[in-house]
Amino acid sequence: MAPVDVPVALLGYGTVGAAVNRFLHENADDIERVTGYHLRVVKALVRDLSKERDFPAAAGILTTEFAEIADNSEITLVAEVMGGLDPTHDYILRLLRSGKPVVTANKQLLAQRGAELFSTAQGAGVQLRFEASVCAAIPVIKVLRESLVVTNVHQILGIVNGTTNYILTQMELGASYEEALSEAKRHGYAEMDPTEDVSGADAAAKMAILATVAFGSRVTLADVQFEGVEHITSAHVSAAKQMEMVIRLVGRATLVDDRYDVRVSPALVDRAHPLASVEGPFNAVMLQGDAIREITLEGPGAGGIETASAVIADMVSIIGTTGTGFLHNDACWRTLDQLPAGELCSPFYLQIAVDDRPGVLARVAERLAAHGVSVARLVQAQIEGGAILHVISHEAAYGAVDSALEEIGRLSESREIAAAFPVISRRGISELGWA
Amino acid sequence: MAPVDVPVALLGYGTVGAAVNRFLHENADDIERVTGYHLRVVKALVRDLSKERDFPAAAGILTTEFAEIADNSEITLVAEVMGGLDPTHDYILRLLRSGKPVVTANKQLLAQRGAELFSTAQGAGVQLRFEASVCAAIPVIKVLRESLVVTNVHQILGIVNGTTNYILTQMELGASYEEALSEAKRHGYAEMDPTEDVSGADAAAKMAILATVAFGSRVTLADVQFEGVEHITSAHVSAAKQMEMVIRLVGRATLVDDRYDVRVSPALVDRAHPLASVEGPFNAVMLQGDAIREITLEGPGAGGIETASAVIADMVSIIGTTGTGFLHNDACWRTLDQLPAGELCSPFYLQIAVDDRPGVLARVAERLAAHGVSVARLVQAQIEGGAILHVISHEAAYGAVDSALEEIGRLSESREIAAAFPVISRRGISELGWA
Repeated sequence: MAPVDVPVALLGYGTVGAAVNRFLHENADDIERVTGYHLRVVKALVRDLSKERDFPAAAGILTTEFAEIADNSEITLVAEVMGGLDPTHDYILRLLRSGKPVVTANKQLLAQRGAELFSTAQGAGVQLRFEASVCAAIPVIKVLRESLVVTNVHQILGIVNGTTNYILTQMELGASYEEALSEAKRHGYAEMDPTEDVSGADAAAKMAILATVAFGSRVTLADVQFEGVEHITSAHVSAAKQMEMVIRLVGRATLVDDRYDVRVSPALVDRAHPLASVEGPFNAVMLQGDAIREITLEGPGAGGIETASAVIADMVSIIGTTGTGFLHNDACWRTLDQLPAGELCSPFYLQIAVDDRPGVLARVAERLAAHGVSVARLVQAQIEGGAILHVISHEAAYGAVDSALEEIGRLSESREIAAAFPVISRRGISELGWA
Repeated sequence: MAPVDVPVALLGYGTVGAAVNRFLHENADDIERVTGYHLRVVKALVRDLSKERDFPAAAGILTTEFAEIADNSEITLVAEVMGGLDPTHDYILRLLRSGKPVVTANKQLLAQRGAELFSTAQGAGVQLRFEASVCAAIPVIKVLRESLVVTNVHQILGIVNGTTNYILTQMELGASYEEALSEAKRHGYAEMDPTEDVSGADAAAKMAILATVAFGSRVTLADVQFEGVEHITSAHVSAAKQMEMVIRLVGRATLVDDRYDVRVSPALVDRAHPLASVEGPFNAVMLQGDAIREITLEGPGAGGIETASAVIADMVSIIGTTGTGFLHNDACWRTLDQLPAGELCSPFYLQIAVDDRPGVLARVAERLAAHGVSVARLVQAQIEGGAILHVISHEAAYGAVDSALEEIGRLSESREIAAAFPVISRRGISELGWA
């Protein structure tokens, strides 16, 4: 049986777009065998026709005119791999309204303006798929939407940014933050301007998308509290090592009594925990739910061919479900409130530098106690003219820890801003060691 | 819009069947919201109507007559959760021939008689889905078939049996094999007759299914060489610990120059490797392919509700793709040869007990060298009246290692059967330590 011809278009023809075109050429047989369809790129929108490309498109494919895609009724499916908010947002809306399903890899667009995009798709009765927007080839969106239908996922823990994970694993091997960052740039794991990655904004957008899908309520980038890795020092890394833990930039989306909390921050992860073995530019997402207890997906979270692989999986899924009227719905079906800032709880590791004066330990302990932060373990290490207090707390509210540290920062013995890291471990806090 | 009514039937109403019925009742709203369909169990085949059940079925649901399901044209979808080869095989064939799609959790049936089942399904144009047959709620089949369409998966490493993984992690904590096995029985992780699990046969069936889907060529249980955990001793476990490794029962399916090798055996896994953090009854599957490099899925690999969750995901996927004519094809599209036994290569750890006589080390080393097994590291540990040789080899063929050990076993100084474990590590062999 001859395969059905499916003309598709790309918005963007950079690394990912070229890889999508290459896959559709080189793996045409695989795709036809599985689907019965022959997907071929007939148009690709670019800004500059003359730029050199990884996998040059055939003559007549590249265009600078969006209308050549939007107005071409032959095109039945479009993949957006150009990035950015504008004019991308408007392009996708126009395509959806004209009845063309869209696959997008654009996390910032979805995390900031998802509501309008999804309601437009739903109104037009076409699919908007976005696997590639979170962790590239790791199929976490498909698993959440199609495999965990009857599992009430109530928490997601994720290492969803490869740049920062690479930096942190390099620091574990002895590099300073600056050295690790240059190394990341040298390997192409960090952009020349790494702000979006190292600030946690990239991870925050991905966590907003994951939380939206898992909890069924819209979570935007503005709802995510995030902190990056810029302030991680070698002293933090070596303290973690002494406790048989590693520092990772962890996104956490939690549902507590039908209220959500989504945040990204550096955390201390027990070496025996699955997230601790995520090294270099890899990503991992751990889904915790009723029927599944805990499923973890790990893999490369970025890269041109990995992202292209996810884009193609979405294209194939769209073809495979056309006309059946489900799975292209907006994942949101309810409106949940946000948990008030600071109410979420976690065990913490605190690193507090103080002048070594009589009574300082008592004053610090008193400030913690005053805010209900219960100390499980405290180690005082002498340093030149002072001391570092290493504190592991029992479960405490983020807000309580912040308030206690603020007051500790105002003590006259306080030397620098204290650091607080949530602790992620399957073991009880009392079992955590200090070598 | 009122949901479309979908009457379904179950073959079997044990732990999994009852959990499926419970989920369809209790999560009816979730399923309707996502799919627009209302799935309800109208018949369930059992042997004994009077037996007490976890989630008792409503009056008239249970039946001992298969014909009440097969001949009921109202039933549009059947889930097989009764297990066994016969009469299950015949039942599924009859359902498929009559145009009813089937979801099955039956790994032994698929691994031993998959060819006929899948060709019948394909001939009838209906789906036969089997996510629950491998690792319960971990959606590895869906990911392989739908997400990794353009990734040429060439190797799968899997911890796919929870019973043995629980036993091995208990042994790490100090238990003997017998103690760990009783503990597993006490927690319900092992059956009263644990043979299928501890012998590796269960893991072998799952690896056969995974290899079939990943490589597109039929691999049956008979094609899988397997070895279980019955001969693992505390001496093996503590040697692994000294090298910062753990022992895991690992399934490995490999494609070498379009020839396949599928095997299950205990292996030494480096602590920094993602498979090492798989603890207790959990499972993990690592898929290595071109576009994705490596994706790992981890989660609970067994359990009634976990399996039921996968069964329901398959039911929903069938509804979601009805009539689109793909993904229900037999995954096999080619016939690959098996790699000749013994040709596959791996680094190895060997544990060899010998009498402590002059020249014994040289004689052992000579036997290894004669078979091309190159020693990367050798540690000789004195024991009462003898010595244990701990050897780490560079990459060597399984067959070469077997032959060398056989000859070493015939040396007059040889004390007991030497053990050989493949070593799984992302680090180079020369970096592996010996504390």
